[in-house]
Amino acid sequence: MARTGNKRVFAQYPASSFPFEKEQDMRTRVTELLGIEVPIIQGAMAWVADGRLAAAVSEAGGLGVIAAGSAPIAWVEEQIGIARSLTTKPLGVNVMLMSPQAAEVAALLARLRVEVVTTGAGSPSAFIEDWKAAGCKVVPVVASSALAKRMERAGADAVIAEGCEAGGHIGELTTMVLVPAVCEAVSIPVIAAGGIADGRGLLAAFTLGAEAVQMGTRFLTIEECGISDAYKERVLVAKDSDTVVTGRGSGHPVRGLKNAFARKARVLESDPSLDPDELESLYAGSLRRAVQGDVENGSLMAGQVACLVHERKDARHVIEGLMAKAQQLAACDLDALADANAFHGQAY
Amino acid sequence: MARTGNKRVFAQYPASSFPFEKEQDMRTRVTELLGIEVPIIQGAMAWVADGRLAAAVSEAGGLGVIAAGSAPIAWVEEQIGIARSLTTKPLGVNVMLMSPQAAEVAALLARLRVEVVTTGAGSPSAFIEDWKAAGCKVVPVVASSALAKRMERAGADAVIAEGCEAGGHIGELTTMVLVPAVCEAVSIPVIAAGGIADGRGLLAAFTLGAEAVQMGTRFLTIEECGISDAYKERVLVAKDSDTVVTGRGSGHPVRGLKNAFARKARVLESDPSLDPDELESLYAGSLRRAVQGDVENGSLMAGQVACLVHERKDARHVIEGLMAKAQQLAACDLDALADANAFHGQAY
Repeated sequence: MARTGNKRVFAQYPASSFPFEKEQDMRTRVTELLGIEVPIIQGAMAWVADGRLAAAVSEAGGLGVIAAGSAPIAWVEEQIGIARSLTTKPLGVNVMLMSPQAAEVAALLARLRVEVVTTGAGSPSAFIEDWKAAGCKVVPVVASSALAKRMERAGADAVIAEGCEAGGHIGELTTMVLVPAVCEAVSIPVIAAGGIADGRGLLAAFTLGAEAVQMGTRFLTIEECGISDAYKERVLVAKDSDTVVTGRGSGHPVRGLKNAFARKARVLESDPSLDPDELESLYAGSLRRAVQGDVENGSLMAGQVACLVHERKDARHVIEGLMAKAQQLAACDLDALADANAFHGQAY
Repeated sequence: MARTGNKRVFAQYPASSFPFEKEQDMRTRVTELLGIEVPIIQGAMAWVADGRLAAAVSEAGGLGVIAAGSAPIAWVEEQIGIARSLTTKPLGVNVMLMSPQAAEVAALLARLRVEVVTTGAGSPSAFIEDWKAAGCKVVPVVASSALAKRMERAGADAVIAEGCEAGGHIGELTTMVLVPAVCEAVSIPVIAAGGIADGRGLLAAFTLGAEAVQMGTRFLTIEECGISDAYKERVLVAKDSDTVVTGRGSGHPVRGLKNAFARKARVLESDPSLDPDELESLYAGSLRRAVQGDVENGSLMAGQVACLVHERKDARHVIEGLMAKAQQLAACDLDALADANAFHGQAY
């Protein structure tokens, strides 16, 4: 990047006119490990993160990730095929470890030699050996430094430290605390997730010690994301108070946008005489309903950061814009940051 | 601060040997507004933040804040007197708006012309006019952008956006999301709180748009803080998973360190046949018990960031160390940050 003796000069440029330089690509241990151009990973969102979305993010220089979720194996293989037809760049697949098919998905990824495997909702220790034998990089999502240490010992190549502001299944610790805590606990690279959707969040994550970020919600609204327009609109208009956590009582809390589905789930959960079948039937198919456009009765998974997502764009524009803004802010010393903040970002 | 054409050079210095320069003081709208030297405010912690602690932080260049909490008016006036005898620098007092004595405390602060009034647990609109007539700066704590907007309209001079990783009474939004969301919502300066205890957190907060930070947990362990050594030790040994939220069901969630008190509170809360008197008697005096050293039966309020607090020191050393580290990190461009993070902070 351009270096200057007077960094304040950068604060004068609005983001749109900031001179774009290709040398902005930030090299970290994560970009080296995964063979990607920018330290940005697209979060795996069940029924949302398909081959087309993942390919778009990978093609734009980040890492696209297909969410296997609890989808049929044939669907997962099909989506990997779609992604492979759209890009030759590295690709990730996320294994949801609570899925009854986790072992089958795990075997598929080893057989297809998917470049990167991320995992959620548990410990992937049982599969790591096979994945590494197949040449896959293994990157588990963790919600505490204790699990991060276990993953490092089990052979993980990096970990994704995901704060509870994220959408979907969440833990207890916030990104602001979890990222530095995990950085203190392990030597492998740490990828920050949760609450990141713009250049400020990106640089804040790097400041906290991360060597890449993972963003889910930010990619929900991009052109290459196949969810319904109605779902995208809900994300775009979301206020900061518009997400809610359901399932806290069950020990599997999930964050999504407030709607009729979430209200009903909260009411059912708080009923001590609850018939588990009723809750089960509410949840069945709820993610797909949202993806297909039923934004009242579907589960609209999204993170708190939905309130900071204001535009659609495509993967390339999102990634280039984020890196340019992060670079511009990184060029500010404390005085320049103070100047910029006095205008609440309007100077950018 | 020193400017250089090659910012990478800063990454070579370990923190301890980083050349300390007095010009590191960061001027923001908050330092100007409050008449302080560094943009660091000490969070008001009931029964913890007394005149001696507040004076130490103000004397070190930040803003010390006495917590009126639900203490007797005479105690609040006494603590203001103690602080005034120890420093001539600006002083803050926090009004806990749920206290039955809030109006009396409010009148006292106007009468004594305390430089800065911060408020928690509600809207201080009814008192703002009197405080401003007395020359007090008014800085409410907010947990959403909607409340921030209301406070700006009511005449607040700045707001403290406190994320749910904080200790004590908490909201729902995390610092990572709340700070930029509030910055988008208001024009007055935003002070970030929750999850900040070191130079990385400080700079991350400035990156997110804050013009100052408020830290509570970080000041619990300093020499001038009068809590028991046993309480300080619990903070120093805390792991990231060692805080817990009680009171979620009651609508007044509070974060503190796990201990017998917190376990008992959680058990009582989850009992649908709960006798409210039993919970009431558990809570009565619980904060004072902790301050005085009963770390099992007292309420050990602390934020998630306790896991990042590793040292005692005094107010001056803490503040100087934080500013030096933030300055050093702010001098890094993206490549220098990547280098530093590859060593997980060990290079500093």
